[in-house]
Amino acid sequence: MSLAIGVVGAGQMGRYHVERLATTVLDARVVAVSDVFVEGAKQVAEGVGARAYADGHQLIADDQVQAVLIASPGSTHEEFTLACLAADKPVLCEKPLAPTIDACLRVLEAEAARPRRLVQVGFMRRYDDGFRALKAAVDEGRVGRPLLLHCRHRNPDVPPGFTTDMMITDSVVHDIDVTRWLLGQEFVAATVYKARPSSLAPEGLSDPQMVVLETAEGVLVDVESFVTCQFGYDIRYELVAESGTAALGEHAGVQLRHQGRHDGPIPADYRERFGDAYQRELQEWVSGVLQGRVSGPSAWDGYATQAVAEAAVESQAKGGRVAVELVDRPALYA
Amino acid sequence: MSLAIGVVGAGQMGRYHVERLATTVLDARVVAVSDVFVEGAKQVAEGVGARAYADGHQLIADDQVQAVLIASPGSTHEEFTLACLAADKPVLCEKPLAPTIDACLRVLEAEAARPRRLVQVGFMRRYDDGFRALKAAVDEGRVGRPLLLHCRHRNPDVPPGFTTDMMITDSVVHDIDVTRWLLGQEFVAATVYKARPSSLAPEGLSDPQMVVLETAEGVLVDVESFVTCQFGYDIRYELVAESGTAALGEHAGVQLRHQGRHDGPIPADYRERFGDAYQRELQEWVSGVLQGRVSGPSAWDGYATQAVAEAAVESQAKGGRVAVELVDRPALYA
Amino acid sequence: MSLAIGVVGAGQMGRYHVERLATTVLDARVVAVSDVFVEGAKQVAEGVGARAYADGHQLIADDQVQAVLIASPGSTHEEFTLACLAADKPVLCEKPLAPTIDACLRVLEAEAARPRRLVQVGFMRRYDDGFRALKAAVDEGRVGRPLLLHCRHRNPDVPPGFTTDMMITDSVVHDIDVTRWLLGQEFVAATVYKARPSSLAPEGLSDPQMVVLETAEGVLVDVESFVTCQFGYDIRYELVAESGTAALGEHAGVQLRHQGRHDGPIPADYRERFGDAYQRELQEWVSGVLQGRVSGPSAWDGYATQAVAEAAVESQAKGGRVAVELVDRPALYA
Amino acid sequence: MSLAIGVVGAGQMGRYHVERLATTVLDARVVAVSDVFVEGAKQVAEGVGARAYADGHQLIADDQVQAVLIASPGSTHEEFTLACLAADKPVLCEKPLAPTIDACLRVLEAEAARPRRLVQVGFMRRYDDGFRALKAAVDEGRVGRPLLLHCRHRNPDVPPGFTTDMMITDSVVHDIDVTRWLLGQEFVAATVYKARPSSLAPEGLSDPQMVVLETAEGVLVDVESFVTCQFGYDIRYELVAESGTAALGEHAGVQLRHQGRHDGPIPADYRERFGDAYQRELQEWVSGVLQGRVSGPSAWDGYATQAVAEAAVESQAKGGRVAVELVDRPALYA
Repeated sequence: MSLAIGVVGAGQMGRYHVERLATTVLDARVVAVSDVFVEGAKQVAEGVGARAYADGHQLIADDQVQAVLIASPGSTHEEFTLACLAADKPVLCEKPLAPTIDACLRVLEAEAARPRRLVQVGFMRRYDDGFRALKAAVDEGRVGRPLLLHCRHRNPDVPPGFTTDMMITDSVVHDIDVTRWLLGQEFVAATVYKARPSSLAPEGLSDPQMVVLETAEGVLVDVESFVTCQFGYDIRYELVAESGTAALGEHAGVQLRHQGRHDGPIPADYRERFGDAYQRELQEWVSGVLQGRVSGPSAWDGYATQAVAEAAVESQAKGGRVAVELVDRPALYA
Repeated sequence: MSLAIGVVGAGQMGRYHVERLATTVLDARVVAVSDVFVEGAKQVAEGVGARAYADGHQLIADDQVQAVLIASPGSTHEEFTLACLAADKPVLCEKPLAPTIDACLRVLEAEAARPRRLVQVGFMRRYDDGFRALKAAVDEGRVGRPLLLHCRHRNPDVPPGFTTDMMITDSVVHDIDVTRWLLGQEFVAATVYKARPSSLAPEGLSDPQMVVLETAEGVLVDVESFVTCQFGYDIRYELVAESGTAALGEHAGVQLRHQGRHDGPIPADYRERFGDAYQRELQEWVSGVLQGRVSGPSAWDGYATQAVAEAAVESQAKGGRVAVELVDRPALYA
Repeated sequence: MSLAIGVVGAGQMGRYHVERLATTVLDARVVAVSDVFVEGAKQVAEGVGARAYADGHQLIADDQVQAVLIASPGSTHEEFTLACLAADKPVLCEKPLAPTIDACLRVLEAEAARPRRLVQVGFMRRYDDGFRALKAAVDEGRVGRPLLLHCRHRNPDVPPGFTTDMMITDSVVHDIDVTRWLLGQEFVAATVYKARPSSLAPEGLSDPQMVVLETAEGVLVDVESFVTCQFGYDIRYELVAESGTAALGEHAGVQLRHQGRHDGPIPADYRERFGDAYQRELQEWVSGVLQGRVSGPSAWDGYATQAVAEAAVESQAKGGRVAVELVDRPALYA
Repeated sequence: MSLAIGVVGAGQMGRYHVERLATTVLDARVVAVSDVFVEGAKQVAEGVGARAYADGHQLIADDQVQAVLIASPGSTHEEFTLACLAADKPVLCEKPLAPTIDACLRVLEAEAARPRRLVQVGFMRRYDDGFRALKAAVDEGRVGRPLLLHCRHRNPDVPPGFTTDMMITDSVVHDIDVTRWLLGQEFVAATVYKARPSSLAPEGLSDPQMVVLETAEGVLVDVESFVTCQFGYDIRYELVAESGTAALGEHAGVQLRHQGRHDGPIPADYRERFGDAYQRELQEWVSGVLQGRVSGPSAWDGYATQAVAEAAVESQAKGGRVAVELVDRPALYA
C-alpha cells in the first residue's frame, strides 16, 4: 500500500519534495504535479510518471490524489489548503500556512470545525535529530526550567529580491515555530533591533537584525537573523535554564589540522543542514496519513507563528515592542 | 518493483536486518527467514509475512527468494555463500566472510570463476557518513599523502563468552577492513600488544590491546581495541598525512553546561553509532541488486581482512610481528 | 628598584591584590594597608611587613607610598582617587571609578586638568589572554567589520544582599567596558529585559536578564547576565562581523570520557577564570608606573562605563530603551 | 633576597632562560654567563649586567654564583653538573642530564652519595598547567587505573642537521619523562616503528615514527613522533583507564567561523605552547633553592629517561623490541 500524492507547485521546493517522495520515501508515490507554469509541472511530472495540471484546484480534485503537498507561493496557500479541507484530503502545506493572520485564521476556522486534523505545516526543524534531542533534554528537565533561549540563524546569502521583511517571514518564522515547540509556550511580544547593515548585503537590505521575543510565562528568546553572513548556513541554539544550559550539537564533519589551524566544516545551505529533517518530515507524514493520522505542526502552529511574525515585521517598520494577541485555541488543537 | 529477500539467521543481527528491510528500506521485502532454531525463524517470519525455514539451504533454493542476507553464525557463512553462488543469487554476508583463511579462499575462488560479483560482505562502516567524509578528504588530498593512522575502537562491554581472540575476529576486523579501504592499501604485518588487563573485564579476557599494522607501502596503523571500556561505544580515527591530519568528527548530540562541566553524549552502542550506516548499506545493496549491480565490500575484502585478522590472532598468542601474505588478487576484483 | 604601594581596603579584593603584589608581581612591594576596620588592615599589613592605617587619606599622604591601589567600597572611590590626584600619585582604582555619573565626572575633570594621566580603573578583562586575542582578531580584520556582539556573563551564585541593580553595577559593567574596548565605540542606548526569575535565585532578585546595548555606529551588543546560574563561572563572547564570527576560546582543562559522556571543566569562579588577567593587570601597572607611564582603562573608561550602567539600571526600573549621553571627551583621553 | 644565577651556554636556550630570569622571574638575577664562544657570552651578559666567561668551570667556581643553569650542548652536561656537585651548588640542567647512560650514571652516583639533592633536570612539561591537571585527574582516580597512554608529539619542522636518532634523544625524551611521571612507573621495553618517510622531511630523516613503550606494570604507551608535520606544534595526550579516558585540553585561542569552516589556532612552536611551563619551572626552581629545597625532575629521572631513550634508539637502528634495565634506585630518590 502506498500513498498517492499530488504536489502543488513545481518550483525549487516542489521539485525538492517530488524527488524525495519519488525516490527515498517509503510507501509514497507522486501521481500529480501542478504549476501555473504548466511546462514546469509537465517536466517534473514526467520524471516520476505523474499527471500534470496547470491548476492546483484540479489536482486537488483528482480522485487519484489521496494527499496533497503544497509548495506553491505563499499567497496561494490559503485557497489550496481550504480546497484540501473541502475535499477532505490530508495536506502538508509548506510554510507559511498563509501570508496574513486573517488568512491563517480562515484556514484555522475551517479546520477547527472538523472532527479531525487534515493540515500539517512544513516546519521541518521539528524533525531534525538535533532539535529533537534538545527538546528531549528540556522535557526531561536535564537543566531545569527554561529562562532564556539564544538562537542564531545565519544564511550565507539570499536570492535577488529578498527584502528586509522576508528576513522575518521567510527565515525567522522557523525560529518562531521551533522555539514555541521547544518551550511549549506562546509569545506575547516581539521587538526587532537592526544592526548597522553589512556592506556585503544587497542595497536596501537591513542585515543583520536581532529579534527579541517574550513568552507569556516570561521566557526571553533572542534570534540573530543574518541572511548574508557569507560563511555558511549556521544554526545554533543555546537554552538557558535554572541549573544549566543545553545547546544544539554542531554538525560534525571531518576535523582537519593543517596550516596552523584545526578546523571543521559548516554546512553550506539548508539542504545540507536539514536534508535529513525533510526526509523524516515527509516519511512521518506519509506513514501517518496511511494510518489515518495527521500530526506534526498544525494550522494552529501556522497561525500563531504568523501572528508573531507580523508583530516582528511591524516592529521592524516602526521600532519598539509590538504585542502579540492570539485568538482562543480551538479545541481541535488542545 | 521490489526485491524479495531471504534472511538466513534469526538471531540478534538477523532480526535487526529483517526489521529494517521490512520497514525502512525502499523496494525491499523479506519473503523468507531461516534458523536452525526454527521457532525463532517462525516468530521473525510471521512478523513480516514471510515463510520460515529450519535450513538455510532450503531458503536459498526457494524460487521466490531473489537475494540472500546471511546473518547466521560465522562458521556457516562459507556453505551458505557457496550455495548462493551456485544458485546464482546475490548475497550480503555479515562479517566474517568465513572464519578461516582457507574457507575465505574457497568462496573467493568460487566467485572469481564467475563473470560478475554476487557477494558483498557486511562491513558497514564504509557506509557511515563520517568514514565516507574521511575517505573523501584523504582522496582529495586535503592533508597530503597518508603516513600513520590512529584508531580507537571501544565498546562499553561484551557478552558472556567473549574471548581474547574475538577482540580481533569480532571487533578489530572492522578496523582492518575500513583502514584497507581508507588507505587503498593491503597490510603486510600485524603485531599485537596486550596492556595489563582491566580489572573490570571478565576473567581471562586480556583487555585492552593495541594492534600495530603495517601496509605494503609503509603506512603504520595502530588500533586500540578496548571492549570493556565501560563508558560508551567510542570510535575515533585520526589519519596523519604529510601536511596535516584528518579525523572523524565526533557524534554531536546536545551539549550541556551543568554542575561545573560542559559535556556531550557518547553513543551507547553500535546501533546508535552505526544505525544510519546499516540503513545505507542495506538500501544501497537492495537498489544495486535491483539494477543488476553488486558493489560494496567484496569477497576479496572479506578474504584479505581475514588474513590480517589471523595474523593478529597469531601475534596475540605468540607475541611478536606476524607477516601477512595474500594470494594474487583475481581479476574480478581488480 | 621596586614600587612602594599602598592598598586602600583590606576586604576580599584588597587581600587578593595585596597577596599578589607581595608574592608574584615583579618589582612591587606593599608598604601600607588601610581599612576603616583597622584590625583587618593590621592583619593584612603584618603579613607583608607593611604599615596599617584606619584612614585611606593618611595612607595616601604617607611619603613612602609611591602608588595607590584602591579596593575599598565603591562609595569611597571618588574621594580616595581625588586625594591621589591631589597628591600626584598614580592610582589603580577597582571598578567602579565611582558609583554615580556625577562622581565619575568630578574625577574625570580633576584628572583632565592635568598634563598626564594618573588614574587606571580595574577592568581586568582587558588583560585576559582570550580577550586580547579576540581584540587582535577584530583589529586585524580577520572576519571584517563588527555588526553584533553576543556576550554571556554567568556567575554560579551571589553573596547575600546582592540586588537586581547590582547585576548591572557589579557584573555587567565588565561587559560594558570590555565591549567598548573591543569595538572602539561608545554606546548610545541600553534596554534591559528581565526573564522570568530563576527559582534558585534569592527572593527578590530578578535573575537572569538580558541587556541590549547600541553603539553610535549601530553595532548591537546583547549581554546575558545570569548571576545564579549554578553551574560555574561562564564567560562567552561571539562577535559577528561582515564575513564571519570570532569567539572567545573556551578554557581548556582535562577532557574526560566517562559514564557515557565526554566532558570538560568550566571555571568555578572569577579567580580561576581571570587570575592570570589580574596578575597581568598588576604587573603591567607596576612596570608602567616605574617607567613613568599610566595606561590601561582610564577615568574616561570608568565614566563612560558608569554612564551606560546607569542607563541600564534606569531601563531595569522603568522598562524600555534609555539613551546614554556622554560629555565631550577631554583631550587627555584622545 | 634574590638568587644569583650563572648560566652556562649562551645559545638559543641559554638566551631564552637568561631573558626570563632577568625580567619575569621573581627573586632571580643573572650574575654570570659563559660560552665557549665568548663573544656570545659577553653579548648576553652585557644585556643583563652580568659577567661573561669562556669557560663554564670558571663560572661555576665564581663565588658570586649561587646556583647554575646549564644550557650548553648535551655533551658538556656531565662535566658541568659534576662540577656543580663538587662546588655544592644547586644546578638546573637542561635535558639531557647527559647524552649516554654511563655519563648519567656517573652524575647519579655523585649526587646519590650526598645527603641532599642539588640537581634538577629541565623537563619543563611537568610544569605545564595541562599536564599538571592531567596528572591530578589520574592521581584522583577520575577514570580509574591507567592501562594505555596515547601521545602525539608533532613539530612543524626541524633545523638543518637534525638526525633520525635525535627524534628520540631531542624530542621523545620529553614524552618518556612526562609519561614516567604521569604514570609513576618505569619502562621496561621500547619498540620503534618507522612509517614511510614524509616527502617533506629532509633527505635521510625517517619521519614520522611510532614508539611503543611498556611499563613494568604493563601499561602501554605509544608516542607518535613527527618532527616535520608542517602544520604546527601539536602535543596531544589521551590516557585510557579502566573506567574512562582523560586527555590534555587543547590550547584555546579565538575560534573563527568563516569561509565555510569553523577553526581555531594550533600553537606555532614550543615557546608558544610551553612558555608558561618554562616560566613556572624557573620560578619554582628559584623559589625552592632560596628556601634550601631542590625538587622537580631529578638526576634519577634524567638517568631513567636516558636509558629508555637509548633502548629506543637501538630499536630504531636494529628493529624489534629492546629491553630497558635500570640500576637500583638510590635511596636519595626514593
